[in-house]
Amino acid sequence: MIAFRLVLEYDGSDFAGWQVQAGGARTVQGCLEAAVLRVTGQPVRVSGSGRTDAGVHARGQVAALALNDAPEAGFDARGLQRALNGVLPPDVAVIDAAPASLDFDPRRDARSKLYVYSIWNARERSPLRVRTHWWVPQALDLAAMSGAARCLTGRHDFTSFQTSGTAVKNTVRTVSRLDVLGKSRGELVIEVEGDGFLRHMVRNIVGTLVEVGRGRRTPESMSAVLAARDRRRAGATAPARGLTLVRVRY
Amino acid sequence: MIAFRLVLEYDGSDFAGWQVQAGGARTVQGCLEAAVLRVTGQPVRVSGSGRTDAGVHARGQVAALALNDAPEAGFDARGLQRALNGVLPPDVAVIDAAPASLDFDPRRDARSKLYVYSIWNARERSPLRVRTHWWVPQALDLAAMSGAARCLTGRHDFTSFQTSGTAVKNTVRTVSRLDVLGKSRGELVIEVEGDGFLRHMVRNIVGTLVEVGRGRRTPESMSAVLAARDRRRAGATAPARGLTLVRVRY
Repeated sequence: MIAFRLVLEYDGSDFAGWQVQAGGARTVQGCLEAAVLRVTGQPVRVSGSGRTDAGVHARGQVAALALNDAPEAGFDARGLQRALNGVLPPDVAVIDAAPASLDFDPRRDARSKLYVYSIWNARERSPLRVRTHWWVPQALDLAAMSGAARCLTGRHDFTSFQTSGTAVKNTVRTVSRLDVLGKSRGELVIEVEGDGFLRHMVRNIVGTLVEVGRGRRTPESMSAVLAARDRRRAGATAPARGLTLVRVRY
Repeated sequence: MIAFRLVLEYDGSDFAGWQVQAGGARTVQGCLEAAVLRVTGQPVRVSGSGRTDAGVHARGQVAALALNDAPEAGFDARGLQRALNGVLPPDVAVIDAAPASLDFDPRRDARSKLYVYSIWNARERSPLRVRTHWWVPQALDLAAMSGAARCLTGRHDFTSFQTSGTAVKNTVRTVSRLDVLGKSRGELVIEVEGDGFLRHMVRNIVGTLVEVGRGRRTPESMSAVLAARDRRRAGATAPARGLTLVRVRY
């Protein structure tokens, strides 16, 4: 057996998320496993650092797989990468590949993840940003959003920002960085780095920050939202299309 | 009669170019005229600053139209913009609108146009850039490309860079700026500004510059290519998807 670590880029627009689903919806994991089967003849599970939702993009998703007798089959990491990219569809590619130890687990071993959320904040929608940005036409107070982001940074129980009904025992996570960055005119980027994220947590944080930016909540109210441990106290879930998984650290 | 000047953004991927075609292919001009008819009840011609090819994008295409009795119908420029954006498909939008004089002709009155061509120069393809970049996996010598760009800047007969078989009397154009810019890792941008462009001229210039970057031509050979006035002497046409019309000056 030989194991590989793959770094993946994908445009999530036409995927029903990362994870293979009953019923055969088009998923990133499903496309990868079909590609591995096609180039190696081996039906293997490809595990990821985490599920991304339908419509969420990645520039640095990390995945792992183990093959039988791979060197004899002529595949080193680079060879496997080239072969996979030759058969994968245009909206997903292996952008890096390396040998990994057989016990490498991209989800459990992850130390931190960096997500970027992109907002198009202008009066009119932007056709060139439809797949990658959330269009928010209302004026946003970036200083207030940054103030709220500071309140959410650090080690907290993020139950209020988790999709309700999820059965996770430990809801404490550390957000090491949460920056609201005004880029060029109309471009707003929210960067979030942390040791792990609950289901929809990044999108729920972004949705809440935008409500602060629109003046519907105060930055100071974030402490009470966290303390409530109640999903109904945080804001709406921001759309998937603005979210990109940028990097996973090990 | 009242005339308007519109500034348009579109993702050209799913359009058969700007110009209305016999046979009903999906074009930007066709979508706009259908939207104008729908919101004003008036079947009018919408003229553009120039045709963009199938797959070419725009962040600042300029168009003009004239309506009967528009103020009485309740449309000022802003109202027309909002109404059009309400019915246009997601891949095209009016990003600015202003009153114009009735004799405004977006093509004849244009003083200069700025195009940007985006190249993804990395070993592996980039799924998030498929619609907007030309993927060139080979190493490119940016200094050589810049040298070639300097040779092409200025007032020249660009016959060698025009699609052959085109019947244009005056093939002399002034390229006021042609910059090859290395952006972040893998991102290469070519900016071209000029008083006008022959058919496929920007894409033929880009294709030729990439051949220089790959070492297949020298920067110094550009003078001979220009002097030959022969399409066969310049390089291959770069793909449409990397090209964006950024701005038209009047």
